[in-house]
Order: sequence, then structure tokens, then C-alpha cells
Amino acid sequence: MSLRSHLSRLLRTQVHSVRKKSVHSVAVIGAPFSQGQVRTGTWHFGAGFLSPQPPPPHPLTRAPEKIGTGCHLKDFGDLNFTPVPKDDLYNNLIVNPRSVGLANQELAEVVSRAVAGGYSCVTVGGDHSLAIGTISGHARHCPDLGVIWVDAHADINTPLTTSSGNLHGQPVSFLLRELQDKVPQLPGFSWIKPCISSPSIVYIGLRDVDPPEHFILKNYDIQYFSMRDIDRLGIQKVMEQTFDLLIGKRQRPIHLSFDIDAFDPTLAPATGTPVVGGLTYREGMYVTEEIHSTGLLSALDLVEVNPRLAVSEEAAKATASLAVDVIASSFGQTREGGHVVYDQLPTPSSPDESESEERVRI
Amino acid sequence: MSLRSHLSRLLRTQVHSVRKKSVHSVAVIGAPFSQGQVRTGTWHFGAGFLSPQPPPPHPLTRAPEKIGTGCHLKDFGDLNFTPVPKDDLYNNLIVNPRSVGLANQELAEVVSRAVAGGYSCVTVGGDHSLAIGTISGHARHCPDLGVIWVDAHADINTPLTTSSGNLHGQPVSFLLRELQDKVPQLPGFSWIKPCISSPSIVYIGLRDVDPPEHFILKNYDIQYFSMRDIDRLGIQKVMEQTFDLLIGKRQRPIHLSFDIDAFDPTLAPATGTPVVGGLTYREGMYVTEEIHSTGLLSALDLVEVNPRLAVSEEAAKATASLAVDVIASSFGQTREGGHVVYDQLPTPSSPDESESEERVRI
Amino acid sequence: MSLRSHLSRLLRTQVHSVRKKSVHSVAVIGAPFSQGQVRTGTWHFGAGFLSPQPPPPHPLTRAPEKIGTGCHLKDFGDLNFTPVPKDDLYNNLIVNPRSVGLANQELAEVVSRAVAGGYSCVTVGGDHSLAIGTISGHARHCPDLGVIWVDAHADINTPLTTSSGNLHGQPVSFLLRELQDKVPQLPGFSWIKPCISSPSIVYIGLRDVDPPEHFILKNYDIQYFSMRDIDRLGIQKVMEQTFDLLIGKRQRPIHLSFDIDAFDPTLAPATGTPVVGGLTYREGMYVTEEIHSTGLLSALDLVEVNPRLAVSEEAAKATASLAVDVIASSFGQTREGGHVVYDQLPTPSSPDESESEERVRI
Repeated sequence: MSLRSHLSRLLRTQVHSVRKKSVHSVAVIGAPFSQGQVRTGTWHFGAGFLSPQPPPPHPLTRAPEKIGTGCHLKDFGDLNFTPVPKDDLYNNLIVNPRSVGLANQELAEVVSRAVAGGYSCVTVGGDHSLAIGTISGHARHCPDLGVIWVDAHADINTPLTTSSGNLHGQPVSFLLRELQDKVPQLPGFSWIKPCISSPSIVYIGLRDVDPPEHFILKNYDIQYFSMRDIDRLGIQKVMEQTFDLLIGKRQRPIHLSFDIDAFDPTLAPATGTPVVGGLTYREGMYVTEEIHSTGLLSALDLVEVNPRLAVSEEAAKATASLAVDVIASSFGQTREGGHVVYDQLPTPSSPDESESEERVRI
Repeated sequence: MSLRSHLSRLLRTQVHSVRKKSVHSVAVIGAPFSQGQVRTGTWHFGAGFLSPQPPPPHPLTRAPEKIGTGCHLKDFGDLNFTPVPKDDLYNNLIVNPRSVGLANQELAEVVSRAVAGGYSCVTVGGDHSLAIGTISGHARHCPDLGVIWVDAHADINTPLTTSSGNLHGQPVSFLLRELQDKVPQLPGFSWIKPCISSPSIVYIGLRDVDPPEHFILKNYDIQYFSMRDIDRLGIQKVMEQTFDLLIGKRQRPIHLSFDIDAFDPTLAPATGTPVVGGLTYREGMYVTEEIHSTGLLSALDLVEVNPRLAVSEEAAKATASLAVDVIASSFGQTREGGHVVYDQLPTPSSPDESESEERVRI
Repeated sequence: MSLRSHLSRLLRTQVHSVRKKSVHSVAVIGAPFSQGQVRTGTWHFGAGFLSPQPPPPHPLTRAPEKIGTGCHLKDFGDLNFTPVPKDDLYNNLIVNPRSVGLANQELAEVVSRAVAGGYSCVTVGGDHSLAIGTISGHARHCPDLGVIWVDAHADINTPLTTSSGNLHGQPVSFLLRELQDKVPQLPGFSWIKPCISSPSIVYIGLRDVDPPEHFILKNYDIQYFSMRDIDRLGIQKVMEQTFDLLIGKRQRPIHLSFDIDAFDPTLAPATGTPVVGGLTYREGMYVTEEIHSTGLLSALDLVEVNPRLAVSEEAAKATASLAVDVIASSFGQTREGGHVVYDQLPTPSSPDESESEERVRI
């Protein structure tokens, strides 16, 4: 996979980022589960934790091997979620409730410990139902967090409004305090306590919103920037207003939950529910550069990359490479470059450097 | 064709649209003629009305079959235009004048009746010469209409300035009162009365304008937003200024004449005269969403989709799907979604929903 | 090559441009050298001037054959640069120093003479190291010139900071007065005198900047608009600010040095160092249209088109066609069209033009 080459960029950036600011450490967690939806293959882990074959090694969580001793990157590896046998439909509709519930409970534990340990936490999915676990875990240590949810979809159906039954379309409904009385308790979900209130989440990139989701967004005053809003305002103003809404009055940790399907399908074809008319590469980078610039990014989910849905290896690579760029940019890689190793330029050793002179490179 | 699936979206939207506002009904007219240019195949109707084979059924005009009883969509089917034998060149140059003239006369009749009957009128071409008929027919009932012409081309050559001789590059010249003394009377065109004045039309998307067309635009103070203007102002301001120009002082019915080649050729490859550097998908949707928002859309032409010019079936489908999105968005489909069926969320039936409980879905 | 058809557009534009303003003449210089980098094939001239085979004719420099007598376009043909035998690495790193130095010396001569002769000078590369010659030559006659450098890269490494050793990544360091004491004298470079100061150059399109380059840009207050800046400001404001910086206080000749890799790799795949997230076609046209509008464009480099790196003939053609559009747009081709030949519209010869009447076309 060409992910390796991309990784080196990511890690180089990490190093820069670490040196530039007060040292902060990054934990990378592989969360290869795809039980929140019905397609297999999210991050090549489609067989999932219930499958007899061991999942292939995750390219992103191999990052630490590439880093020198100075880097504060911690590899938590791929989590092995406990299988739940006989995970029947809830309500004749909701798929894998116990598996999704338990996996998220375990994930919340890991994220909570990582954040408590001083790490910024990168969780690489897996499907978007894992945000139940990452945000719950993150909120245990940072109850004041704000969420930026970048996605083509609002993922805010309740188990009573969903038509697909897939939990990756419902995570936000379990997390919002305001929706608590609208959400039945699913088997495996008893551990979940709603941990964010509606003014603490901002959506970016919406363009495929179900009618009940639209009703929730409007009725609970949830802030969102649809693609139409991005077209209307431009991405610069969208980020400005996002920060006004979320951190305008006080600084707080940011949880970025980034669904790769926020991008246009021409850029991120290898995903389960692509929707035409998405973010450009440049808009995606702008979003993450801006979030990095706040200095408040505390946790990041990167979800719904599914190489098995790609029509070609090229398409799979492009999508994975884009995911790496999102992560790298969120942690300090900038398009205009940066420098920390230079504080002065090398000067020719003699005013009249002669042709024959062999110089040692500086 | 995957048009069917797109159609369901279109029609679902229609239903919403109908319920949301005061009920308004939509008429769909198939106008499969391509005599205004020399390529065959516009909407698979290339053989045209002069051909012995019957044209294949038009996918868009099959819409009503999919609609329930509550929908105010009326299918006018594909018009069968009366053939004109021995349709010699006019002026050794202008192609099919009698056929284009008569077909437009018949089309004007149908559009006029539909509008008089209270319908918003969608005419699916066919080449852009059909706007002579749709706008003439529309204006009979709505003499005050304003035209938004979305196109890579100005289509405003007169029969005396055209170099191609194709009438699909000239329709506006027959419609503008100010150009009346510059346009000779073509055989088959005697029925046409110029029905709009130059302040009543605004162009969007121009990027391939012939010198005489540029002279006309400048000399007659015709408003246009070229791709350069869109780059300069952004699509939000372009629409704002369009409405200022057209409906700033008084409300009036809008006739949207949308040539699919306004889009970039990467998005709409299956068209006769593609020009690099066109509208993005998102810009196209923004334009139509804004027009819908005025509540004034009274007639829509969707023209110059030509599947036979596609290099692949995929390219043909992409172009057709884009055309459907233009229509759907013009009649109320929005990217941020909508809701009418919901006015409250379903609530779990008991405060402590138990796992074993089987609930009926709401 | 379909370049021929594009050329006709270019040349037609030239003619218009010439007629529109005070007559100005354009010289086209082919500079087929690629010694500033290690890939062969830039403009099909990869074998370069050291190769025994004669280079194929350059399609762009064949332009004059297509022009009528009225056009002030002068073809300088492809330069034949003097070979430099035994061109060893400088400092164990810098590639082809003597060849690049001498070629640029010869090119500077030609450009200087062309500009002195009243020509606007188009140099078609070749790699970007040729800007050493074109800007040096241009500055001899126009010491006050300002440079607009459109590129994914800053090309401002010094021979002591470069890691690749390729001179096409270093040209600006040889040209800037402020860097004079940081740049060793390379064999073949003794003729070069730094001729621009840092406030006289503005970059547009940067997105792959090495750390030492970033240090130079920041430390010497060099103005640049990275892709992030373009996303933030929009291309309209970027050009506005570029002109404020460069010609806000006084009019001066503009040297536009345009690297095709400024465009997104999806548009310009046939180039040596593509970087994701580049200019759109429309942004590129906007940049050049705006530069043309100043009336100050005095010299243009178009570099780094390399058909041999294209994966298909289609990709090669697309890149070459884009290059032609950059040149054409820089010299007056506009997307909204133009007219000079028309000062009035043809009028039908009789008020009641009859069907049988045969008219001579106007």
C-alpha cells in the first residue's frame, strides 16, 4: 500500500508539531469494527472481530515503527473486540445491537485512558457507530468537549426513526442529552450516558439528511453547515462560524469526528454511502488545518474508509491516502510548509567558492 | 437506465414540494427534437420526428407511473411533431428552418395550454432551439416572465451572424424585441412574435461566446454572468445579483432555460458542444435551489443531453442523472433535506424499554 | 497533436489582442532544455541539446505558420543550446551546473534582445531552471520588473539547502539580491547577477514547500499565496492583493513564470512533480485573465509540461492544451468572449425577407 509513503509525511508532521508547541503526545487506536452497518470491509477489517481469520495489520497503526525515539506517538494497535454470540435484531430492525454496544464500551475505556494519559487520541475506524465509544470515552475525561462532525450524513436517527436499522446512522442520537427520552435502551447499550448537549456539536458537509433527522436538527437547534451552506458562505466563513459557535466563548477540547464520505465520491470512492457533491480536497484540508490551528484538537475519529467497496486498487489507495492527509493535516501538516530545524541559512564557506572545491553539505 | 432511481428522488421531492407550499402542479413535456443542430441523439431521440422508427420511450416522462394518487404531476408524454418534407437550407446556411419553426409552434401551443391550466411546465429536450417554443408559449400566458438562461453559450446569434447555421445557437435572437429588425423572417417562423425585452433575461455560465454574440450582449445591455464573473463574485453573489436584476423590483414568473453544457464537461460529457471550465455540480445545485426558493419558477427547459455522444454508458448515465438533479432541485429537492411528515419524534413506549420487548416501528 | 486546434484559438486571440490595444508584438521562444532536473521529456525535448537526435519540432513555436500577415508574432524557433561536455556534479550534489548555466546565459541573451526589440516574450520550456535566463534577460532591459511565480513549489532552495540537487528547484535563489551571500558560485553561473529584490516577486499556488524554503520565504518577507491562502481568500482577492503588492504604487513590467504543476494533477498530469490539491482550470484562467487586464505583461514562461510522464496520450494532450490556454489567456483570450470585427449587426436586406430570397452572408 502506498499508505506507507503517506505515513512518513504524517509522522514527519507529528515530529514537527511536537517540537513546535508544548509537547503533546498522540495515541493511535485501530478500531476495526463494521457492525454498525451491513457492508463488510471497512478498513479491510470487514470480517470483523467475529470472524475466525485474524484481521490484516492496520497500516496506520504501524506508524510507530517509523518514528524515532523523540516522537511521542503511542500505538495502541488494533483493538480486539469481544464477540457477542446470538446478537438478534432489536425491534426486528436494529442490526447487531449487542456487538456494537459492547465494542463501543471497550473502545470508550481505551479512549478514556488514553486521554487521561495526556494523549490526543486518533481512532481509525471502522464505521461511524464507533463515535459512540470515542466520544463517550473522551467525555469522561473532558466533559466540556465540543464535537465537529464532518460527514455527508447527520447520523442522528434514533432507533425509532431509522429506516435502515444500521447503527452507524444513529450514533449522535445516543450521545445527545436532549434526545434521551426519544431513544429506547438497546441491549448492550445500558452503559451509555448521553454526554453532549446540542449546542456542543456542529456538523459540516451534510447533503443526505433523512426527514426525521432534519426534524431533529431543526427542532433541537443543532448547528450545521450543509454543502449548500458551504457554497453560500465559502469554507473560510464556515470554519469561522463553527469556531464562533463552539469555542467563541470559552476554550474547550475539540473532538473531530470525520467521515471520509464528507468528501466528494470522486475523491473518496471507497466508502459505503457515497453522496455526490461533497467537499473538495482543498476544503477538507482547510477544515483540518483550521482545527489544528486552534490548538484544541483532543480526539479525532477517521471512519468509513472501506477498500473493499472500491472498483479498483487505485480507488482504494486514493481514499486511504486522503484519510491519511486528513489525519496529518489535523495534527499540523500544512500546505504552505513549515520549518523548525532551520534558524539560519547555510552560507558558502568562502566568498569566492571555486568550482573545484568540494564542500560538505550542510 | 439508473434514471429510474433518480426519478424516485425527483418525485418524492415533488410530493414534498406540493405539500409544503400551496399546491402547485407540474407538467412534464417530452420535446424530442434535435433539428436545431446537426448531431443526432439528443435524449435518444436523434432519429427525430422525421424518422420512420418510433422514438424510444422517454425515461423522464414515464415519471407519473411512479407517482401515487396524491401527486399533481401531469405527463404530457413525448410530443410527436409534424414532419416537414423538403426542408431546404435557408440562405444556403440555416438548417431545418421549417421543421424547427413548426415544432416550436406546436410546442408553444402545448406549453401555453399547460401554463394556462395552472401547471409549472418542465420541457425535456431536445436541443436548445426548443426554447423558442417554450418561452413563446409561456409568455402567451405570462407576458411578464423573466428568463434565466444557464448555458456555456449565449445562443443569441441571428440567422445573419451565425457561422454554423444551427438554430440551437440562435433561439434568443428570435425572442428579443430589441433584435426584431436584425432577424430575417425564416420559413416556418412567421408565427413567432418576440416576447421578451433585453432586461428580462439573465445569462449564467457563459464561456464560449462568438464575436457577434458578444457585440449583441454589450450593445443591447444584456446581463450575463460568465464563468469569469462566477470566479470573481462567487455563485452566491451571482444568484443574488440575478434576482436583483430580474425580480428585484417586482415579482414575476421565472422561466429557467437550462442547457446541460453549462456544467463542466467532466460532469456532463454527453452533450453536443461541451466547453471546458464549466459549473461544478454544487454550483448547479445552488443555482436551482435558489431559483426554487423564490417560489416563482413557472417553466423549466432541460436541454442538450445527448447520450449518443457519450464515450461510455457511464458517461451517458452521469449526464442524465445530472439533468434529473437539476429538475429535482429546481422543484424543491434540497441538499440539507427537509421534513413535512414529521412533526414530532416517536418516543419509546415505556421508560425502561426492555430487550425482549418487540415494538412496532413507527 | 490537438495542439494545432488550440493554437488557432491562441493566434486568433493574438490578432484580437493586437487590434484591441496599441499594437504590441509577441515573440515565442522554444527553450527545450530539461537539465535542471533529472527526468527526460519536458516538452518532448527530453533528449535535450546534448542528445544526438534532433528534437522534434515544437508545436507551439510553429505558431507563425498559422498567422496571417497582420500579426506581430515572431517565431524565434527552438533554441539550440551549446553542449557542455563533462558536466560533473557540483558539491557532489548539484546536477548539470555548467549545462544549465550556459543554456540560461544563451537564453538570457535571446530574451533580452527580444524585449529590447519591443516584443512581449513567451518562453516555452523546458524545466523551471530556465527562469534564471528569462528573468535575467528580461531584467537587463526592464530592471524594474515584477515577477508573478505561479507554481506548486517555491523553487527557492539554494545550492546549499537543496536535497535533490536539481536546479529547477533553485532558480529564484540565484535571482534574489537578498540571497546573494547565501548562494555559492556554481561553475557556469558566473555571468548571473541577482536582478530582483524580494518585494518584487509574488508566489501563487504553493503547496509543497521545503523547510529551508519556508524559512527563506518567512525570513526575507517574500509574499506568497499558498493554496490555503487561495482557499481562505478566494482567487479574486488573491489577484487583487497580488497587484496591490506588485503594481499598487507604480506601474512596472510583469514577468509571469508559470509552472504547469500549479494546476491540480487531475488537470495537468504530464509533469514531473505533481502535487495534489492544485489550482482549478477556472482559477488558472482567472489568474491569467487578470494579468492580461493589467496591460503590463512583458514576459511569460510556461514550463514543466512533460508529455513523456503522462500515462496516456489523452493525459499528455490535456496538459499541453492547458498550457496553450494559459498562454492564450495571458495574451487576451477571455472566457466571456470579445469582439472587434463587429461594430454593427447585419440587417435583413428587406423588411419582409421572403423564403425564396437568397442572401449573401455578411
